[in-house]
Amino acid sequence: MQKPIGIFDSGIGGLTVVKQLMHLLPGERLIYFGDTARIPYGNKSKRLIEQYAMEDARFLLQYDVKALVVACNTASSLAMDVLLKNLDIPVIGVVNPGAAAAARLTRNNRIGVIGTIATISSDAYRHEIDRLRPEAQVVGQPCPLLVPLVEEGWLDDEITRLTLKRYLHPLIEQQVDTLILGCTHYPLLEQAIAETVGANIQLIDSGKEAARAVKEVLHTLNIENREVNNNPNHFFVSDIPARFEEVGSRFLGQKLTHVERVNFDQFLLALGSASFSDRVMKEEV
Amino acid sequence: MQKPIGIFDSGIGGLTVVKQLMHLLPGERLIYFGDTARIPYGNKSKRLIEQYAMEDARFLLQYDVKALVVACNTASSLAMDVLLKNLDIPVIGVVNPGAAAAARLTRNNRIGVIGTIATISSDAYRHEIDRLRPEAQVVGQPCPLLVPLVEEGWLDDEITRLTLKRYLHPLIEQQVDTLILGCTHYPLLEQAIAETVGANIQLIDSGKEAARAVKEVLHTLNIENREVNNNPNHFFVSDIPARFEEVGSRFLGQKLTHVERVNFDQFLLALGSASFSDRVMKEEV
Repeated sequence: MQKPIGIFDSGIGGLTVVKQLMHLLPGERLIYFGDTARIPYGNKSKRLIEQYAMEDARFLLQYDVKALVVACNTASSLAMDVLLKNLDIPVIGVVNPGAAAAARLTRNNRIGVIGTIATISSDAYRHEIDRLRPEAQVVGQPCPLLVPLVEEGWLDDEITRLTLKRYLHPLIEQQVDTLILGCTHYPLLEQAIAETVGANIQLIDSGKEAARAVKEVLHTLNIENREVNNNPNHFFVSDIPARFEEVGSRFLGQKLTHVERVNFDQFLLALGSASFSDRVMKEEV
Repeated sequence: MQKPIGIFDSGIGGLTVVKQLMHLLPGERLIYFGDTARIPYGNKSKRLIEQYAMEDARFLLQYDVKALVVACNTASSLAMDVLLKNLDIPVIGVVNPGAAAAARLTRNNRIGVIGTIATISSDAYRHEIDRLRPEAQVVGQPCPLLVPLVEEGWLDDEITRLTLKRYLHPLIEQQVDTLILGCTHYPLLEQAIAETVGANIQLIDSGKEAARAVKEVLHTLNIENREVNNNPNHFFVSDIPARFEEVGSRFLGQKLTHVERVNFDQFLLALGSASFSDRVMKEEV
């Protein structure tokens, strides 16, 4: 099936997931939407994140996508129910594949998760691991400084190492043997994290696991693209902030091209989003 | 005049400015709007920041405010022209008062400014200082990690000191004798910054200078409140994120009460904001 795959994220961090998808599924065309005008989702409420996720999804549906990847850990933690209830294409988040890998790989049943404040307080990773491996204990740790450290490009850096040491020390003390990188930015810190926690703790990259899950879903549903794909991937963003290309290319692992800024406000007005967000809000109460 | 003063910020950092206004103008009623749903402005484009600033202003105009304080350094740097052109009440930002204090106080004509990426790249402080004291040299330094460090509450902390050392070292090398704290969050780091730069560099708190400017404007225009003010100050936010009260109270320097979440999307739809933002965008091109 030649239709593209849609991917959205709160910003350009989700390009680390695109990188994995391009690697695993070179035949598929990808349409990415990064909500750079409303980034970050990680410090917002569940209600607002649900509304944003549905709006992002609807933007991608315009391109007749055959599957939707929620590259944002925060949205995967807080908005999957709303997305699954309202969409009739497969929706793959990053939380469940990451949780499944951790539940499969832990030997001592102690799993650590790091992410934004919203991702960790949602307990989404914990709930999924509980379901798959109820005997496992999950220790969550919010790490709000890691995203700005990655965006500064301080990857191999004393300040980053000290910050990681402070955030990860409680997880080491709790003797986790598996650590989920529950944020799209963290794969860029994989080496620094590995050095901090040592060789006995295995790291799970949720984005990489999500890309594997997407491949499996396409195969199971028999909707892979079997033709040659000559169309380039396309990247839409709702704002073009300073340092955009520099940071984006770092995440993607190659030069970021075919980027287009969309007037997302216009899109939302056309969509009549307020009436939808009202519905979500009422369901929440 | 009993009408209230309106203050807006991209989030709750502007409460440091409210703290100064409450101290300097205890007789005035304050209406605050914190755009927590769209925070931060600091990594967004000028076009989007202008649109947001006008929308925030229009929200406050509903309360018949007699003056508008732009507590957000980013909006003060990038959106003052649009606000002044479109509003017919006095508008006071934090940039010009901060720049004026620095231009007045420097002895060696070397002034440093720290702030978000958007504030520093806008060169707004530099332009205003150029106008007031053309012989002064201005050295800008974006410090994107300081906001999350303050929000973590790591105020007296090794990691914060190392980060400050890295950001401020170039300014010390350039021998600035005056340093503008060009972000609402930075007053909470005043002591750590003073320790990093030493006693020979004087610090300017833009929020404090803005509060002084507001007092002056009210006096000059003869619109101070001379009655007893029995109405409490009111705080509106567009989202209530995690840790909201904890962080907000830290900024305000006292317990944050009378907070109300507004459905800002509904407000924007009622306003027909897209047509406005379109106008701004067209003017920009």
